[in-house]
Formats: sequence, structure tokens, C-alpha cells
Amino acid sequence: MITFVVMIQIVLIGGGNLAGHLASVFSKTAGLQLVQVYNRKLDKIKSFEKFTEITDDIHALVKADLYFICVSDIAIIEVSRNLPHLNGLVVHTSGATPLSVLNTHTQRGVWYPLQSFTTHRVPDFKEIPICIESHNPQDLQLLKQVAELISNAVYEIDSNQRMQLHLAAVLVNNFVNHLYYLGFDFLEQHQLPAQILFPLIKETAMRIHEVDPYDAQTGPAKRGDIPTMTRHLNLIEDDTQKALYKLISHSITQTYGKKL
Amino acid sequence: MITFVVMIQIVLIGGGNLAGHLASVFSKTAGLQLVQVYNRKLDKIKSFEKFTEITDDIHALVKADLYFICVSDIAIIEVSRNLPHLNGLVVHTSGATPLSVLNTHTQRGVWYPLQSFTTHRVPDFKEIPICIESHNPQDLQLLKQVAELISNAVYEIDSNQRMQLHLAAVLVNNFVNHLYYLGFDFLEQHQLPAQILFPLIKETAMRIHEVDPYDAQTGPAKRGDIPTMTRHLNLIEDDTQKALYKLISHSITQTYGKKL
Repeated sequence: MITFVVMIQIVLIGGGNLAGHLASVFSKTAGLQLVQVYNRKLDKIKSFEKFTEITDDIHALVKADLYFICVSDIAIIEVSRNLPHLNGLVVHTSGATPLSVLNTHTQRGVWYPLQSFTTHRVPDFKEIPICIESHNPQDLQLLKQVAELISNAVYEIDSNQRMQLHLAAVLVNNFVNHLYYLGFDFLEQHQLPAQILFPLIKETAMRIHEVDPYDAQTGPAKRGDIPTMTRHLNLIEDDTQKALYKLISHSITQTYGKKL
Repeated sequence: MITFVVMIQIVLIGGGNLAGHLASVFSKTAGLQLVQVYNRKLDKIKSFEKFTEITDDIHALVKADLYFICVSDIAIIEVSRNLPHLNGLVVHTSGATPLSVLNTHTQRGVWYPLQSFTTHRVPDFKEIPICIESHNPQDLQLLKQVAELISNAVYEIDSNQRMQLHLAAVLVNNFVNHLYYLGFDFLEQHQLPAQILFPLIKETAMRIHEVDPYDAQTGPAKRGDIPTMTRHLNLIEDDTQKALYKLISHSITQTYGKKL
């Protein structure tokens, strides 16, 4: 008896953090087959050899169902235009880039995993929201199929929504991380250990599952406690940080002043 | 045989969230005895009757080892001054208030639990950093003893350090929560569910255990990606939020421009 197993064949283009994590998860997912990884510089993707064939020759790309462009946002257009004609679906993985930059490809889409990837932390893809987009229903179906094989949270989102989502992600990830940095920096300057803030950071982040941040807001700005805010401002030496403290406090005051 | 059990007797002054959580944890901790709760308005502390005796008569305070002032920051001085002479250690529980506001009391200290308390979430006190201060070694010892009975993270911290810590806590709790609110608000305006951001928020918060926020920073401001920042700014309608996006991005740029 001959059994036909449908395997979705995938080529990865790029050699960064995201490409690495995708190569790893695609390789171990039944139903997916990572058939090649391409990068302009071969030495950057040596570590991918444990998963599949690697190449630095753009004209040697093998036939596949899906080509994942995993390069930095500014490089997507150029990489996309340099691709030869491909008989498959070409997608990028960027939150901040519209689908239209792939216009030279007949089959095109977006497959955006909404998470912050770093080299050393292995992500649990089951939890990561995958945001997919394509104008062609069949292509969208393929993107959905791949997304659902590795994640429990798949969203169909258009380019406008994805840009909003990316902006929101910058606020809750990049900007929040910068506030962590500033907080830890204040502590270090005064011989206090960073870990004293860990439980507070955890509680603040986990509380969103139960309480809307609008209702969870506390602090001197929320209650209009000017003496405390003045004391805080006197502790801040850097002008940018002083301005930041004032502006976020103002934004909080405005939020509750408006809606109360 | 007679066994003497040393019990530290405690009176709580105040009827808010923190008073409620402290009453609960003190009541179930061996070695501690909550002997009374005082509040100016008796109806506000009716729910404390399940723990101990309650009173609204400041002159009826019973004898205790420790008097915990758990009122809002602005009310501490007034409450402290209105207290009769007490034969015990008087402490406040505020991060933003110096020890010196208790100067009318011979025995005085600070017992500051660094966490954000809300009514409906029961805190795990074992994890909450307790920051203690007193000029008197014996009083400090008593504060330490009480803190160590309920928490694994006890820190001796002076009033200057505590103010710095409180500032840092405002950044990573109040300000971060406001960024969560703004992010969720953008999503809501574009028919996207808030929970799509939950895994990213969790990852950002938990990563601090492994990676210093300075090294973990990513995003358009960090990499000087002006096209993406411009697109984001065009999505933001509110002037304060636009200014906030610019200023935090500037602070990130400044942080890495300086140190690179």
C-alpha cells in the first residue's frame, strides 16, 4: 500500500533570529518540510545546515510551496525584487510592512508572528499569535494551514490593522522595555538590586488577564499627587528623562480627566 | 509545663486595600497577632471584624508592639500627628514618604511592601519585597522579624533609597500600565482584541530574569528606522500620544547613541 503524505515545502530567505526560530519549529512540525535556507552570506547560515540544505545563490532556489522572507524591514523590498520568478507563495514576516511591497510576485502574503525574538530564549510557538494576510483565498488558506500547525492563535489581519497592531506592540514591548531599563538604571545608581522590581513587573504584566489597564491604573499621576511627582522630578537629573516623566504623567492625567 | 509563645501584637490604622491584605496575612501568620484595626469611619472597616476588634475611637487604641499606618500618602502626616502617645513602634507603609514624617513618635520606622495592591487579586506575600527602615537597631530588628515571617525578600533601605525605588516602581508599574492601556486602546479602535498582545507583554516582562533590558532593547527607535517611526506617528491622532511616541523614541536613541 502506498500512503501519500501531504507535506508543505518551505524555503526560508534570511539568517537572523526569526529565521533561526522558524527553521527550528518548521523542522520539527509534522506536515511541514523545510527544503532550503537562502542567505546572501553563506557563513551567516552555517548553523542552519543541521535543518536543511543552505545556499547563497539566489538563482539556485528550489521549488517550494512557500517562500518566507525573514530579513530586516528595510531589506524586504530589495530582497523581494531580487528574487527570480518563483512558482510558489512569497510571504514576508514583518509587522510594519504592507503586503504591497511584494507586488512583483503573483502569489504573495504576510505571515507575521507577533513576538519579540531573541537568540537565547526559545519561544513557545503554540502561544504566539500569527497574523496572516493574502488577497487570494487559496493562498490565505495555505498560510492559515501552516500557522495552525504551529500556533493556537491565528488571526486574519489586513495591512492597515497590522500596522496598528505593530504600533501597539512597540508601545507594550519596546517602550515598556525602555522603562524597565530606566527603572533598573535608577536602582543601580543608588546601589539597589534590579531584582527588587521583578515581582512588581510580573504583577503589572499578569494583571492584564484579569483587570483592564484602564481600571488598573494607580500612582501619583492618576491621583493628582503633585508633591510626590515634584519629589520624583527632583530625583531625575537627565533632561530627557525629566520630560518623559512629565509627559507620561500628563498623558495619564489627560486620560482620566477626559473620561471621568 | 507552661509554654511561652512570643506573639508580636499589631494594630492596623486605615481601611484601604493594603490594610485589607495586611490584616489577612497577619491573621494567618504564626507569631503575629492582629489585635485591633482603627479607622476614622467604622463602616469602612466592617469587613475587618472577621479578623479582630475594630474601632473608630483614636483614644481607644489598645497596647501593641507595632502600629501600622496604612493610609494614603497625603494623609500619613495628619494621621500620625493625631495619634495619642503610643508605647510601641509606629510605622508607615509608603514608598514615597520619608521616615521623618513620623518624628513625633519616639519609636518610628517604615515597613514598605513593594507591590501594587488591588482589591480582587490576592497577593503572594512570600514574593513581595519588604523594605524596612528605622534608626533604632532594636526597632529595625522587630520590623525585620515581622517582614521575614511573611516574605522571603526583606531589604533594609533608607529614606533616600526608598524614594529612588518608588520612582523606579512608578516607571515599571504605573507608566508601563499606561502604555498597556494606550496599546489596548489602539487595538480597540481598529477592532482588534487586546489578548493578541498578551504573549508579547508576558515575554517582555519575563525576559528581564535572563536578559538585561539594556541588551534586550529592540524596535524602530533602537535601530534608527525612521520610515517605520514616521508611519507610526501618522497613525496616532492624539497630540499628547504623538509627543509621547516621539519622546520615548528619542530617549531610546539617546540611550544607545550615548553608550555605543
